[in-house]
Amino acid sequence: MLTTTLIQPVKFNQADPLGIVWHGHYIQYFEDGREDFGAKYQLSYLDIFQQGFVIPIVNVKCDFKKPLRYGDIAEIRTTFIPTIAAKLIFNYEIYNHTTKEIVANGSTTQVFLKKENLELHLIYPDFIIAWQKKYLTNG
Amino acid sequence: MLTTTLIQPVKFNQADPLGIVWHGHYIQYFEDGREDFGAKYQLSYLDIFQQGFVIPIVNVKCDFKKPLRYGDIAEIRTTFIPTIAAKLIFNYEIYNHTTKEIVANGSTTQVFLKKENLELHLIYPDFIIAWQKKYLTNG
Amino acid sequence: MLTTTLIQPVKFNQADPLGIVWHGHYIQYFEDGREDFGAKYQLSYLDIFQQGFVIPIVNVKCDFKKPLRYGDIAEIRTTFIPTIAAKLIFNYEIYNHTTKEIVANGSTTQVFLKKENLELHLIYPDFIIAWQKKYLTNG
Amino acid sequence: MLTTTLIQPVKFNQADPLGIVWHGHYIQYFEDGREDFGAKYQLSYLDIFQQGFVIPIVNVKCDFKKPLRYGDIAEIRTTFIPTIAAKLIFNYEIYNHTTKEIVANGSTTQVFLKKENLELHLIYPDFIIAWQKKYLTNG
Repeated sequence: MLTTTLIQPVKFNQADPLGIVWHGHYIQYFEDGREDFGAKYQLSYLDIFQQGFVIPIVNVKCDFKKPLRYGDIAEIRTTFIPTIAAKLIFNYEIYNHTTKEIVANGSTTQVFLKKENLELHLIYPDFIIAWQKKYLTNG
Repeated sequence: MLTTTLIQPVKFNQADPLGIVWHGHYIQYFEDGREDFGAKYQLSYLDIFQQGFVIPIVNVKCDFKKPLRYGDIAEIRTTFIPTIAAKLIFNYEIYNHTTKEIVANGSTTQVFLKKENLELHLIYPDFIIAWQKKYLTNG
Repeated sequence: MLTTTLIQPVKFNQADPLGIVWHGHYIQYFEDGREDFGAKYQLSYLDIFQQGFVIPIVNVKCDFKKPLRYGDIAEIRTTFIPTIAAKLIFNYEIYNHTTKEIVANGSTTQVFLKKENLELHLIYPDFIIAWQKKYLTNG
Repeated sequence: MLTTTLIQPVKFNQADPLGIVWHGHYIQYFEDGREDFGAKYQLSYLDIFQQGFVIPIVNVKCDFKKPLRYGDIAEIRTTFIPTIAAKLIFNYEIYNHTTKEIVANGSTTQVFLKKENLELHLIYPDFIIAWQKKYLTNG
């Protein structure tokens, strides 16, 4: 499995009047993790855009287990989930970096649209097949 | 079914470099819909806080069907989903208000924590049972 | 003076761990007020874009007087400030709608860039001169 | 002068439909810089809270010179500005980290409120005087 880990402190204004990170910000944490993964494995939005595709999110889900507070440090583990459909699926586990307790987990699914006409691409683009060969062969 | 409908224009900065509303903002749209429901049916965060409870989100999911753009108007339909477990479940359908096309749908699940100790309340609080009698009897 | 007034409740996640609206969100309130003004007086981003211009913010300032809390209602008064330079200047006063106390005030300055090359337009575009004749003649 | 430098990539959803970072996000960049300064020089919100004070922002201003885009890297230089009034003043310069062009600059002013009653503290708290002796003596 390809997994990256991103460590980042909770921002002051990400915490709500209850003192805990507002649930909607975890969607940002997922994107932070996905971008971090993309930067490390040449799969960022810009990499994919330069290949002629945009990859909108078509599904997101998240389960919230424990709160994070201002002062806590989030640890975002992003895992690439291979699939035979022409989709990008990532799983995310968010931990309290200090206590190592899991605070949330979830997933996103993205599809490939050709950037010139925004039409759905039903098979994997060639550059993704090449990417899979490079990174997942022994996975 | 209890459903409320909230109409609100897309904000300029909710749209991303692709010109479409960033997926994470739909979680805010869900909360906007839920708060609108709460204001109309006496079930807002503040109503519930005054009853001695906080109601954190424990699960959120969203499917994205079509984009919204700056200049579009979002129509957020929020539906209360009765359940026998001590949870609050809402479903959301987001439409392009002008074209009436569905752009996204999803749900949230909340649990009841006693505000003094943040312990999980495993049965419905009395005020929720009274609320259900008032609003769901013929539902 | 041309002034518009926008009434909107504080959102739950706009309040920070101190229970008060995070200062950065007032920049959003300013934009909400400016867009409301634009909708009422045909001066929205889209109106101006259709005339061939974009109008980036080149300066913003804000003084914070009192806090707003979740449960409070913001009243945003947006005033167009005429100037001989080719700029759009708006002043904003934000009140607690219930108590009528002022909670913040500030201003933004925008310039005109031609949308095809993003070059600064040093004189007022014709459509702005026509707009001023229509709305400010007896102002 | 005490200055810290924070390097961070622009996030995808910080850029607006024009492809440039929305102006309101610079207020977040200022806070990111201020928190980074606080972490390095023991002057974070939590440090100050533990000393019995909260330090709300009473003024913010920002001039925008050039745009940042998704794919760019922001370089945030945060400078502590000594003053005889019982205030914390920071200046911020934001650069495009790659080109070293300045993209924005601005400042924030904070005051000291006693956390138990939120009353304004008109003179510097003792811990701030000690902090100034430690860090600014030869400044």
